[in-house]
Formats: sequence, C-alpha cells, structure tokens
Amino acid sequence: MGVDTTATLDRARAGDARALGRLLSLVEDGSPQLRSVIKDLLPLTGQARVIGLTGAPGVGKSTTVSALVGAFRAAGRRVAVLAVDPTSPFTGGALLGDRVRMQDHATDDQVFIRSMATRGHLGGLAAAAPQAIRVLDAAGFEVILVETVGVGQAEVAVAALADSVVVLLAPGLGDAIQAAKAGILEVADLFVVNKADKPDSHQVVRDLRTMIALGHHEPGDWKPPVISAVATGGLRDAGIVELEHALDAHWTWLRSSGELERRRRERAREEITALVFATLRHRLAASNVDVLASRVADGTLNPFDAAEELIAEHVRSR
Amino acid sequence: MGVDTTATLDRARAGDARALGRLLSLVEDGSPQLRSVIKDLLPLTGQARVIGLTGAPGVGKSTTVSALVGAFRAAGRRVAVLAVDPTSPFTGGALLGDRVRMQDHATDDQVFIRSMATRGHLGGLAAAAPQAIRVLDAAGFEVILVETVGVGQAEVAVAALADSVVVLLAPGLGDAIQAAKAGILEVADLFVVNKADKPDSHQVVRDLRTMIALGHHEPGDWKPPVISAVATGGLRDAGIVELEHALDAHWTWLRSSGELERRRRERAREEITALVFATLRHRLAASNVDVLASRVADGTLNPFDAAEELIAEHVRSR
Repeated sequence: MGVDTTATLDRARAGDARALGRLLSLVEDGSPQLRSVIKDLLPLTGQARVIGLTGAPGVGKSTTVSALVGAFRAAGRRVAVLAVDPTSPFTGGALLGDRVRMQDHATDDQVFIRSMATRGHLGGLAAAAPQAIRVLDAAGFEVILVETVGVGQAEVAVAALADSVVVLLAPGLGDAIQAAKAGILEVADLFVVNKADKPDSHQVVRDLRTMIALGHHEPGDWKPPVISAVATGGLRDAGIVELEHALDAHWTWLRSSGELERRRRERAREEITALVFATLRHRLAASNVDVLASRVADGTLNPFDAAEELIAEHVRSR
Repeated sequence: MGVDTTATLDRARAGDARALGRLLSLVEDGSPQLRSVIKDLLPLTGQARVIGLTGAPGVGKSTTVSALVGAFRAAGRRVAVLAVDPTSPFTGGALLGDRVRMQDHATDDQVFIRSMATRGHLGGLAAAAPQAIRVLDAAGFEVILVETVGVGQAEVAVAALADSVVVLLAPGLGDAIQAAKAGILEVADLFVVNKADKPDSHQVVRDLRTMIALGHHEPGDWKPPVISAVATGGLRDAGIVELEHALDAHWTWLRSSGELERRRRERAREEITALVFATLRHRLAASNVDVLASRVADGTLNPFDAAEELIAEHVRSR
C-alpha cells in the first residue's frame, strides 16, 4: 500500500495532522518510500529549532514539556513534540502513558505530539530521529521538542540530535554528583532542577553550579544556566518562562558562534554513518558470523582473528 | 614500553593484583599488545560466572555489590568487580567515588575491584568489556560482577555482557512502571528492590510481580524473582543471601537450558561485530564523510544518497 507522498506532504504542510502522522509512520517503519519522501522535503528543511529534553524517569519530563509547549505557543510558534524511547530494542519502546498528561494541547492544531518507536528502522534511532525531525521541520514546525527518557547514553543520543539539550534533574532522584557520574554534565546546554519546592532542591542547584564553575570555559563559550522549576504542565509554572528565555539565548548563541552548523553537520554525520553501519550489519547477519561467534565463545578462536576474517570479506581495503 | 605478557599473566593467575591491573590497562587503552594477550589467555577462560548489576543513580548499586561480594566470599569464591561506565564518551567515564564504599574488601586478596573506562578502545565498551572479562576469567576469578550505572541502554549493554542480569530499583526513584518504560523488564533475570525499609517499597515489589506475571512465559522459561533488600554493604544485609541463592538458581538454569551457550555466543557476536564496525568507523573518518555530512546538513544532499556513496566505497558488494 503506497502513500502518495507529494500530496501527503502538501497536506501535512497545510496543517493536516493525519497526513503528518502518515509520513512519520513511514519513518518509524523504515519504509522503502522514505527515501523519495526525504528527497522531496529536503529543500523545505533547516528552519526548525530542535530542542532535546531528557532526564531520569520521574523527574517530570512530560509536565515540563507540556509547560514549555504552552510557553512557545504563547510566543506564537508552531510546536511539535517527538517522544522517542531509545531504550527498548525488544518492545520498540514508546509506551504512551505520558501522552495523557499532554492533553492540555490536544485541541490546539498548532501543536503536534507524537511518540515514536523505531521498529525495523534501518540504522535505528540514530537514523530514524533525524528523518522524523526533517519531516516535522518540512511540515513547518518552528520548534521541535525531542523528549527521551534515561540517564547516560540516552542523553548522549539526544545531544547528537538536538540544537539545544535540556537536562532535567529533581531532588531525591539522584543528585548532581550522580548526574556527573552519568556523564550528563558534558552534554547539557541547560539544566532544569524540577520540583524546586522540595527541600533538597537548593543543594542540587548549588552543586550543579559549582560543578559547572569548575569546568573549563573559554571566553565566548556557552555556560549552561541552571533553572529552578516547579512544572505541573502549565505555562505559568515557576521557571518555565525563564527556561524559554534561556533557550532563546542559547539559540542566538548557537547561530552567532558557528556552533549550530557544527552540530548539524555532526548530526548528519551520525545519521549517514548509522545508515552505512546498518548495511554492514545486514551483510554480517547473512555471513558466517554465528559460526565465528560460537568458536570465540568456546575459546577456540580469538575475537581479533574472527573480526579480521569478517573485515577481509566485507570491508574494502584502502 | 612493552609488557612481558606471559610473565604478567602468570603473576596475575598467582594472585598478583598489580599484574592483573596491568593487563586490564592494556584492555582499557586498546593496546596493540592486547591481541597476543587475549590469544595467550583464551584457553584459560570459560569458567567464570558473569553477573551484571545495574540500576539508576542512587538505588544503592555499590552497597549491594559490596554485600554480594561478601556473600560470595563467605561461600569461598574468588570475586572480581568490574565497574564500567558506558555513559560518558567525553571523560571516558569511570569516576571512582563509589570505590570508597568498597573498602570493606580492600584487604581481601581474593577480591579484585576495578573501575574501567574505555578510552581509545577499538570497538568501545562492546569490545572492551568482554576482553576485560576474559582477563579476569583467565586470572581465576569464579564470579565476575559487572556494575554499570544507568537506566535504559546501559541495561541492554550489560545484558549483552552478562550471564545473569540483576536490575536494582528503589522506591521513590522511578517506580516499576517507569522501569517498564525504560525497557528494563525485558533484560532483567533478577530484580532487587533495594531500600525495602522505605514505605513505598511494597508497592514497587507488587507492581513488578504483576508486570512479570503479565509477561509471556513458556514452561521451562526463567521467571525473574523479585527480591527485597536493605543493602548497606554487609553480608548480613536483608535480602543479600536470598539474592545469592537466586543467582545460584539462575546459574543452574542457564546451564541446563542451553541459555548459557546462547548468551555467550551472542556476546561473542556483539564483540566481533564491534571490532568490525570500529574498523569501518576508522575508514569512514579518513573518508569524505565530513563533506557529505555538510551537504546533508545544509539540505543539498539526502542522507540515503550520501550513505550509498560511502557504502560503494567502503563496503564490499556481495
């Protein structure tokens, strides 16, 4: 069952959410049609700001996203939310429970919300998410919020996708030092300490600021602000307007410093690499890798010799 | 500076912790010597049980690991702990703070504890960790505990490494439903609900058991037990002996069901694949991928065409 992609793209650009949903399903499913869709919409892209938002389960990501959507809507912007679950290769991820909390925006046709899994996608999340972002960008959304769950590698994955990375913390959910351990200090452009009405939150803010101050910053570098918030989903929640302003400042810095081009080039590089790797992965799956793996597992072949055999067979020598 | 690897390996097997540390540094650094070291020690491997232990920051991983080390020591086993931080590609990970809490075992020469980063390792964590496990296995450790921080992809990475995967949760740190969202239900062989003296812990245990019961289990399948614990680092901590017994039961099941061979073959497969991918990644880095990425980023080339160009150049056609 093919989709008339040109017509569907036109409808999506005109604000038809079902048409947009259909295009995103092509991305999700890794449809063969995707290639021509991406080709068609490529000239229409490059305008959207991509904001990644991540944090451990329970820090209040969905309420913060919902509040932030309200803030951007109040500023007159079309907003898309892409909730990506990179964590579950088994279920394909993307449980929909959180979406319930986003119902405030359900009747606003300038807001589009979608949970995305990457089942069967050639190249996995690293290739699927940039393609989904491209679809939303081409459909005319000025702000694209990419929400992921997790601490650690998920943050790094978000960082590879987003122009601005917001990391959420909350008191009692692993403190700032734990955040440092998880490697998230390095990927965050902005910190939000949510649940700032809880007693320990000042300490988390202080610790974060100390650690940021200890980091190495050249003149002209971006220094991540730490914003206290009490997000319940509303535009008037404490910290939300401040977060929106900090994001605007980061966007200005991204464009003036040349960092925006650098990040987008890096994102494209990861996307292409993921597509190349996916092809190699397919070739390996059809090779004798299982026989080699059995021999490595039982200790009769060392992994370097096994890899060398596969490289000779599948990777061109220079 | 070369290392006389045969002599070093002999000393490591005789219980010399410094010699063992030197071999693990070769792994960490991705030393060219590694290949001959792995070749030498391969015939000595295959005996150790590899137990992965993971959970979000703050659930009490280090105290649980410390207590579990005590339990295995009481049973007369040599135990190694490998604390892997897969989360930070920037610092190389592996902050050492937690090690302080393991000082109970500092004077026991049958216990070896090491934090590992994977800086510069060809193939990253996916290749480095199996090599480190092989070194510890060859050095005669009967139990290897691999501890990682994180929720989500880190769990999946641990699952790919370990014979048994223990997932730690704690009340107030994201409940069982959040755990399901993070995809960890599928990778856990055993659950520990730590901080069981806290009021909400019964609910977490109940929710987990419900979700496990809802899962599909064939006769003969392993059904993950849920163990309540109050780990402070001691052998007599509530739940620790129960955890050790559950791990013994899982080990028996692994061997009788054929699952052990399957998992180890899968681990070897991931390791070999990571080494092959590392080679391709090197080739791509030396190619025109940056030029292609720039064109994809500015919307003048679509990512599929870019990938195709690189595939034609670097991946052999069948």
